[in-house]
Amino acid sequence: MKRLWAAAFLALCLISANVQAADDPLPSWNDGTAKQAILRFVQATTDRSNAKFVAPEERIATFDQDGTLWVEHPIYTQVVYCLERVPTVVAKKPQLKNAEPFKTVLSGNREAIAKLTLPDLEKILAATLTGMTVDEFQAEAKNWLATARHPRWQRPYMELVYQPMLEVLNLFRTNGYRTYIVTGGGQDFVRVYSEQVYGIPPEQVVGTAGGTKYGFDKEGRPDLTKEPRLLLNDNFAGKPEGIHLVIGRRPHAAFGNSTGDQQMLEYATIANGAGLGMLLLHDDAAREYAYGPAKGLPDTEVGTFTQPLYDEAKKRGWFVISMKNDWKRLFPFDNGP
Amino acid sequence: MKRLWAAAFLALCLISANVQAADDPLPSWNDGTAKQAILRFVQATTDRSNAKFVAPEERIATFDQDGTLWVEHPIYTQVVYCLERVPTVVAKKPQLKNAEPFKTVLSGNREAIAKLTLPDLEKILAATLTGMTVDEFQAEAKNWLATARHPRWQRPYMELVYQPMLEVLNLFRTNGYRTYIVTGGGQDFVRVYSEQVYGIPPEQVVGTAGGTKYGFDKEGRPDLTKEPRLLLNDNFAGKPEGIHLVIGRRPHAAFGNSTGDQQMLEYATIANGAGLGMLLLHDDAAREYAYGPAKGLPDTEVGTFTQPLYDEAKKRGWFVISMKNDWKRLFPFDNGP
Repeated sequence: MKRLWAAAFLALCLISANVQAADDPLPSWNDGTAKQAILRFVQATTDRSNAKFVAPEERIATFDQDGTLWVEHPIYTQVVYCLERVPTVVAKKPQLKNAEPFKTVLSGNREAIAKLTLPDLEKILAATLTGMTVDEFQAEAKNWLATARHPRWQRPYMELVYQPMLEVLNLFRTNGYRTYIVTGGGQDFVRVYSEQVYGIPPEQVVGTAGGTKYGFDKEGRPDLTKEPRLLLNDNFAGKPEGIHLVIGRRPHAAFGNSTGDQQMLEYATIANGAGLGMLLLHDDAAREYAYGPAKGLPDTEVGTFTQPLYDEAKKRGWFVISMKNDWKRLFPFDNGP
Repeated sequence: MKRLWAAAFLALCLISANVQAADDPLPSWNDGTAKQAILRFVQATTDRSNAKFVAPEERIATFDQDGTLWVEHPIYTQVVYCLERVPTVVAKKPQLKNAEPFKTVLSGNREAIAKLTLPDLEKILAATLTGMTVDEFQAEAKNWLATARHPRWQRPYMELVYQPMLEVLNLFRTNGYRTYIVTGGGQDFVRVYSEQVYGIPPEQVVGTAGGTKYGFDKEGRPDLTKEPRLLLNDNFAGKPEGIHLVIGRRPHAAFGNSTGDQQMLEYATIANGAGLGMLLLHDDAAREYAYGPAKGLPDTEVGTFTQPLYDEAKKRGWFVISMKNDWKRLFPFDNGP
């Protein structure tokens, strides 16, 4: 009998904890326009009596990754991966040792590396992300992610996810939305950790994708080899194209943080007020970084929140999330609110 | 009290009906090697104590469409759609009226139409499947599907699905598998009806896909225009490539009916016995059609079950489904068994 009472008490505690969580599904958010907009959207689109009701099968929400779900500064995680893969690639192909841009990367000279051009970077991406089988690539990326550390926090990159955004992903999912990552980063790279980090399975990751070539490995096992042939550049107009290619439905909510996300937000929100468009502004140099409009970066740069994007957000009724003011807590490892 | 008894009786009836259904999830299949192979695979891969157990998140089963899930003879449904769209396209672009191959199609001369070459067909596909927005295309295809009839059965194409395969799809889904269509047909076309016909949502359809161009329509609404630019030819080696692009996981079961499905089956089954590979043999001229090895069709033709494919199936431990012997019932509109 005592055990029964104990079980009942435990059950009551769990219920009460659930009610508390249900009271505020976004505990790491300060009250404000952004938080209210998210809550209002989810409430309206799941209420059958509301004009904005969205049928369960149509509930798709898309999220940019770099700078929206996790830290993108000072360098995109995937670019760090590619740079750090260079010694391994050169060990296998010694003829690259004295060829640029590999020579510069091997020198370890940070200033010189920071000055590499876009064509240089493309050569590095092609050399480090293609030529191996999909299975080999997944194993290599997984190994690297387990040991690499972000220079500022000295923690694995996979820990540098925004706790407030994990709460948003969870809020959408508990309300019947399927959450998709729609990233300018490599689809294959993000799929390696998306389930573990965000609870998003590989089939719900849309990203920049290259072609693959079907064949058999040495053991006669069928596999795909990654080729340096671009199928989808999942940035700017490429984001709605990627969404159509992989999902085939128009999202009702989209989260981004840069000019590379503008078209995705347009596509998801259509007219003012019908869908939810959210942009994260990095204005928190103390806890993370401050960049975007304040820095006067060129309009065309991906990964930046430009003044024209800010103006477009106002025009289209999108909401701007201020990291500094809207977020109580940044990372899961921070002390909770 | 009477009502309570009535409710209890009803509940019992429902339970008993469920038990009956659970007894045989494939009632339209005759007992035989093919049926037993499917049941054994599902049982083994969902049993934690079995060496072949597949974790729930990895449960992916892929199905070719034309000739595997529905009738593909005498002409692929989508090709019929394209041919029947020609008058509408020509009405909008009168300069095509006297240009080949449109002139032949407009003539209605069946013999001449049957002799159109592959490049002719490609011109027709490009003219009828591209140039419009995705929304326009979906509306057009939906309208056509609602009125078009198959010449033999005089029924909508959407009714010509194989009841035994609907039961297989359902069996896999009730056992935690996500079922995907992986078709050589157009991804956008199949997505129009996949949910209604197979219970498969658009995001679980992988098919031959073209590029799209992002822009705004006359009302300023963002949309995508279908372009005559091939992104993925989802046939032969293109099937594993498409599976990787859209799903990012290796399936554990694959169903097909032709040489165009061989690589998908190789990719899904890896070594003998580890995964399930099934090929449908059309050997039932009385109830449907007989084609494939018996007809001596060229090995390279998509949509055919050639002798080399038959030999490969034996070598790799795939199972051949004989439509004539394994299926009690073909279509949902047939009298049930």
